[in-house]
Amino acid sequence: MSVFSGAQNALFATSLCLLEHGDEVIVPEPYYATYPASVRLGGADMVSLPTDVGSGFQISIEALEKALTARTRAVLLNSPNNPTGAVYSRQLLQSIVDLCRARDIWLISDEVYAEIAPEDFVGIGSIDGAGDISITISSVSKSHRMTGWRCGWTIAPRPLNRHFYNLNMCMAYGLPPFTQDAAAYALESDTETALLVRERLSRNRQIIADEMADMNTARLHTDGGGMFAVLDIRALDMSSSDFAWNLLATQNVSVLPCDGFGPSGRGLLRISLCLNEDTMRTAARRILAHVKQVLA
Amino acid sequence: MSVFSGAQNALFATSLCLLEHGDEVIVPEPYYATYPASVRLGGADMVSLPTDVGSGFQISIEALEKALTARTRAVLLNSPNNPTGAVYSRQLLQSIVDLCRARDIWLISDEVYAEIAPEDFVGIGSIDGAGDISITISSVSKSHRMTGWRCGWTIAPRPLNRHFYNLNMCMAYGLPPFTQDAAAYALESDTETALLVRERLSRNRQIIADEMADMNTARLHTDGGGMFAVLDIRALDMSSSDFAWNLLATQNVSVLPCDGFGPSGRGLLRISLCLNEDTMRTAARRILAHVKQVLA
Repeated sequence: MSVFSGAQNALFATSLCLLEHGDEVIVPEPYYATYPASVRLGGADMVSLPTDVGSGFQISIEALEKALTARTRAVLLNSPNNPTGAVYSRQLLQSIVDLCRARDIWLISDEVYAEIAPEDFVGIGSIDGAGDISITISSVSKSHRMTGWRCGWTIAPRPLNRHFYNLNMCMAYGLPPFTQDAAAYALESDTETALLVRERLSRNRQIIADEMADMNTARLHTDGGGMFAVLDIRALDMSSSDFAWNLLATQNVSVLPCDGFGPSGRGLLRISLCLNEDTMRTAARRILAHVKQVLA
Repeated sequence: MSVFSGAQNALFATSLCLLEHGDEVIVPEPYYATYPASVRLGGADMVSLPTDVGSGFQISIEALEKALTARTRAVLLNSPNNPTGAVYSRQLLQSIVDLCRARDIWLISDEVYAEIAPEDFVGIGSIDGAGDISITISSVSKSHRMTGWRCGWTIAPRPLNRHFYNLNMCMAYGLPPFTQDAAAYALESDTETALLVRERLSRNRQIIADEMADMNTARLHTDGGGMFAVLDIRALDMSSSDFAWNLLATQNVSVLPCDGFGPSGRGLLRISLCLNEDTMRTAARRILAHVKQVLA
């Protein structure tokens, strides 16, 4: 295990230590907005693997296999996914691990939402054969609401840890000791925060699904985990950016167009579930009202 | 100005943003131990510019000019220097700036010891013509004894700051807010710590110079600033590593062989001045005793 200034810094370090010019990294799309730069800075090319709301943003193992080339160095997973919430099943992950083993490809697994994920979440570390080909990245940002503390880590095979150690020596010379003490204390002492966050997200997921059940044309995706739901407005004759600005102007509700998460995000909107129940319910009703108004 | 996780992280970012494969960076030697890796990670080659204790580890402008090639991208300065303590005069710095301007070369100036430097210290930012070709790197590590807080910065031309901003987004996503608050408070409220540290270092420099004045063959270099003095044992028939180990075993005093600071460091030992006066005096006497014993 190596400690970094947050999961983003851990991904940054993984990219620097693992990737070379000419390598390819396959990333399911929509993807977290920093991934393209994180892959590029290691010198590699990012290869998008589009996923669709129709199939719950799941990865098609056939599509993944087709995307592999002789240059593929790694697959970068994020489950639960930001922005889609997609959680990958044990079976899917096992297929991906088997495929990567057979083709000598690394798996980078960004699991920052693991502790607040639904109970069917599976970490890459528990998959047979993943140990020596995978890097698990996580942090205390979501599990302990310590985002601003910038404390994350990698769990990786030993040879890679030696590279991380050397990189850390000239990257930032380590983390403040009190940051690490606080993170260690949080990890050892507090298992409640993650459960509370998970329950609240789960309740809000149900609230928004119930409130917006009576919606035509536009579709709401609330399966999976993470901190977001996705609204699919591709059937509406409107860009997600226009929808978001109009929603803000007329209903005072802010949602995020998914265009920044890759081309697959076009026509999708990310809805935060990090609200109290009343606000979530009000927001859901207003979003629904706006959808109906656009259709009217 | 851009904020980073300490001066080392600032140097790391400067290397990533400024350097390309094939570039050369000229570094006066002996140099701080992380410099070779910091230059290499940006893809550049480090070109050493040896300096000698005989000339107070000063840079020869003629030697610097000779070292320049069409590939030279930057000169990396560190005044006061770690390990040598060398402080570069206004005149020397002006010559370097003029040379770099004429040849379209960047100046990276690691000034982490600036606030605890002697009064004749000159920062690169005060040199005519340095503004748009120089990056000044510093931190609160030495000035406010906040090494473990990991808070440093660059002062650089605006276009470079935009690159730093983008890099920071995918490198570490910024620093903890309380770290920045603490650093800002320290910088605004505490001007005494640096003066106290400077006075203590200056006193210890005098103590060790006085105590070891009566030394033959080996030579002590205490000119300049920073936190160290340098013992030159090249006239003794012994490696600096053997000297250091023997000194530790027989006199219980620990000094650092300078071999790790580049080939010019061979036969030199770095002596810390960060001690209370009594300990400094005792250490100086024991080092002197050891030198005499080696000669006996």
